Amino acid sequence: MGGNKKNCTIVIEGGTLLSMVDGEEPLHDARVVISGDRITEVSVSDNNFLPETNEIISATDTIILPGLINTHCHSPMTLFRGMADDLPLKTWLYDHIFPAEAKYLNPDTVYWASLLACVEMIASGTTTCIDGYFFADEIVKALHKAGMRALVAQGVIDFPAPGVPDPKKNLDVASAFLGRWIHFSDRIIPGIFCHSPLTCSDKTLLKAQEISTRFNLPLQTHLSETDEEVTEIKQKTSMRPVFYLDELGLLKSNLIAAHAVYLTEEEIDLLAKREVNIAHCPESNMKLGSGIAAVAQMLEKDITVGIGTDGCASNNNLDLFLEMDTTAKLAKVTNLDPTIIDARAVLAMATIGGAKVIGLENGIGTIEPGKKADIIIVDTHSPHMTPMYNPYSQLVYSATGGDVRDVIINGNIVYRDRGFTDLDSAEIMDEVTRLCRHVIVRPALA
Amino acid sequence: MGGNKKNCTIVIEGGTLLSMVDGEEPLHDARVVISGDRITEVSVSDNNFLPETNEIISATDTIILPGLINTHCHSPMTLFRGMADDLPLKTWLYDHIFPAEAKYLNPDTVYWASLLACVEMIASGTTTCIDGYFFADEIVKALHKAGMRALVAQGVIDFPAPGVPDPKKNLDVASAFLGRWIHFSDRIIPGIFCHSPLTCSDKTLLKAQEISTRFNLPLQTHLSETDEEVTEIKQKTSMRPVFYLDELGLLKSNLIAAHAVYLTEEEIDLLAKREVNIAHCPESNMKLGSGIAAVAQMLEKDITVGIGTDGCASNNNLDLFLEMDTTAKLAKVTNLDPTIIDARAVLAMATIGGAKVIGLENGIGTIEPGKKADIIIVDTHSPHMTPMYNPYSQLVYSATGGDVRDVIINGNIVYRDRGFTDLDSAEIMDEVTRLCRHVIVRPALA
Repeated sequence: MGGNKKNCTIVIEGGTLLSMVDGEEPLHDARVVISGDRITEVSVSDNNFLPETNEIISATDTIILPGLINTHCHSPMTLFRGMADDLPLKTWLYDHIFPAEAKYLNPDTVYWASLLACVEMIASGTTTCIDGYFFADEIVKALHKAGMRALVAQGVIDFPAPGVPDPKKNLDVASAFLGRWIHFSDRIIPGIFCHSPLTCSDKTLLKAQEISTRFNLPLQTHLSETDEEVTEIKQKTSMRPVFYLDELGLLKSNLIAAHAVYLTEEEIDLLAKREVNIAHCPESNMKLGSGIAAVAQMLEKDITVGIGTDGCASNNNLDLFLEMDTTAKLAKVTNLDPTIIDARAVLAMATIGGAKVIGLENGIGTIEPGKKADIIIVDTHSPHMTPMYNPYSQLVYSATGGDVRDVIINGNIVYRDRGFTDLDSAEIMDEVTRLCRHVIVRPALA
Repeated sequence: MGGNKKNCTIVIEGGTLLSMVDGEEPLHDARVVISGDRITEVSVSDNNFLPETNEIISATDTIILPGLINTHCHSPMTLFRGMADDLPLKTWLYDHIFPAEAKYLNPDTVYWASLLACVEMIASGTTTCIDGYFFADEIVKALHKAGMRALVAQGVIDFPAPGVPDPKKNLDVASAFLGRWIHFSDRIIPGIFCHSPLTCSDKTLLKAQEISTRFNLPLQTHLSETDEEVTEIKQKTSMRPVFYLDELGLLKSNLIAAHAVYLTEEEIDLLAKREVNIAHCPESNMKLGSGIAAVAQMLEKDITVGIGTDGCASNNNLDLFLEMDTTAKLAKVTNLDPTIIDARAVLAMATIGGAKVIGLENGIGTIEPGKKADIIIVDTHSPHMTPMYNPYSQLVYSATGGDVRDVIINGNIVYRDRGFTDLDSAEIMDEVTRLCRHVIVRPALA
């Protein structure tokens, strides 16, 4: 298991370091020393003195940065990548996704599809992910095996759900899930993911927040992803979703709200006041035709905003480099202002911003001594990364996840020279392909 | 030179073929036979009979499709990739791009920067590009050396310009350029690129169209990229830009208008009636905060629309796979309709649509016997391309240019197993890096 290897001291030597510490400039020809699971030194490379080490990673012609943090993902949905695209939202959800979930999700498919998500995420520079779905035990097993850091939440919905046939027991299932995994690993945080204020009753929402608060854990929910959802909540509660959740007492600093597309200024203000965290998923919102979140306005009001890919059925990949590019560009065109959310700001959202969303800003999200060693190294010796004037620009506007060369999580090298040190990605792809061949009827190819 | 190798018969064997011929379904386990510069056979693979050949390309676990066509690019601007991002449009243009162009463009920088664009485009699956810039002779030399197919246009602007210090001579320079290259190669079409109806006088525009028509060549211009530009043209001419150009007699089926962001419905109707071709550049329009072109509406009115990356200073890469993804997603969110511009439609824009824009739809843009062999092969054996339900979805929503494995242009294999058969990409990157180190002052890194 990737996460259980004996840690050894690693020295990363050369390359341009973006520590993502506030106010710090890029450090050229950098050295990063890792001991065990921690960063112990960040300095300029010195040929005359090299610390004793078993592992030197030469990082010439690279950018060294904190591992990216995906703040909204449903890992097992790799299973449904490209299965039903370009359809009306309700057709997509009710005629394709929900039936497919009901029919094909089981511990086996969830485990392998989650592992597929892991190899995709790691190979594109994501070291931490915030996940929420069903059969969450299997997601934990997969993400832990892959050596990733994660908040993995058990999905809660007031309907019969995959692995939770009786909705009356949905919170018992979630509670038991928390109990099983809370002391399991320093890389895995368990949690609860309430599907939405529309599909969970007020009682369910309240209880989920109660349990989460008792365990001192984050709570996730989808929030105001579509206009229609807002309308239905207003019909049901006579309130807009954010005010409804506030009345329930749900809006706390442990809440992670995904999407947050349809918000009034008052709702944004209230989210800011309550220190609610937002997972911004621009590509999913675009592809499903949902709408455009006012992310620049949220950042202005000091709301903590991370970036998420959402699941593979609505994106259709888990590449945070592409999501960063879209985050910046979509904000610029929406505001008709090219200065909004510059490259460094968007990289901050995907690193230290994501760390804050998950409540781990003291442990990860920047490269500085004392922090956990979650570090990625991006190859810059390629045509689309040449020439190099500004490393932030290059990462956000020119790079893709395919440029990631090495990935270190918790002091372990899980990906080196574009190959996995422990995971067998070919086996994982084969297994998912095999599972899909057997269980899913291919739609007609138009 | 990549384009001058002796052509030999090539057989592509296996893989899923997307011919992009109207009404044709994906062909699994396909065979494509190439003789000289032409496709001679498209069929299902047959192990019992293999044509005599020197070159078999095994295409198992790939998608075979027509080479992508970039309908709006300024290749030499790779030189300025990431030099000045996230700035107000006028600051960007007048304080950074124009001065840099004036100071650093010369035949040497344009040649090498264009070659850099070529290796980037080829490695990401672009086989044909529509280019317009200054020192266009050097762009021709670079694109021809790289083995690419291209419409290369000499830039025309009524101000002193790089290589054209006297604007009075701008059309003489362009005419001479056409004369030099029109019979040079069956892969290169020369042309004129009028910078915009604002920076070119009515006389210049008219004369440029006269010359283009006389040579039977396409004419390019930027059109209504920003709201401000429209306002200024209205002030100058009392007409909106499309009506102004129509009054001049510029709107013909040889006109390629890039951007076309700010159009009224009447203007769209007129462009449709005049059979003007549009180069849609969504990522550039987003990054510069310009606006969102009504591309779905243009397609509905049967306007020929291709996709372009624009130059690297405003994107910042030349990856048409990313541009396809953005084209589809931006149209969906703008119209709040996930069914608008489906994956196949966007792939059609980037292939046969681009071919129509350039007037080469009888020669390229689909894979069928008799057409020129411009073919790319995309590797699907990777985590983010697994599982595979719908190859169109996978290419548009999951892939990046980095998934391209092989590229054939005009029957020549220019890129194989992710390596160039003829170009030395390391030398090109080194040369551009060297030129940039010497000539461009790096901006402060924030």
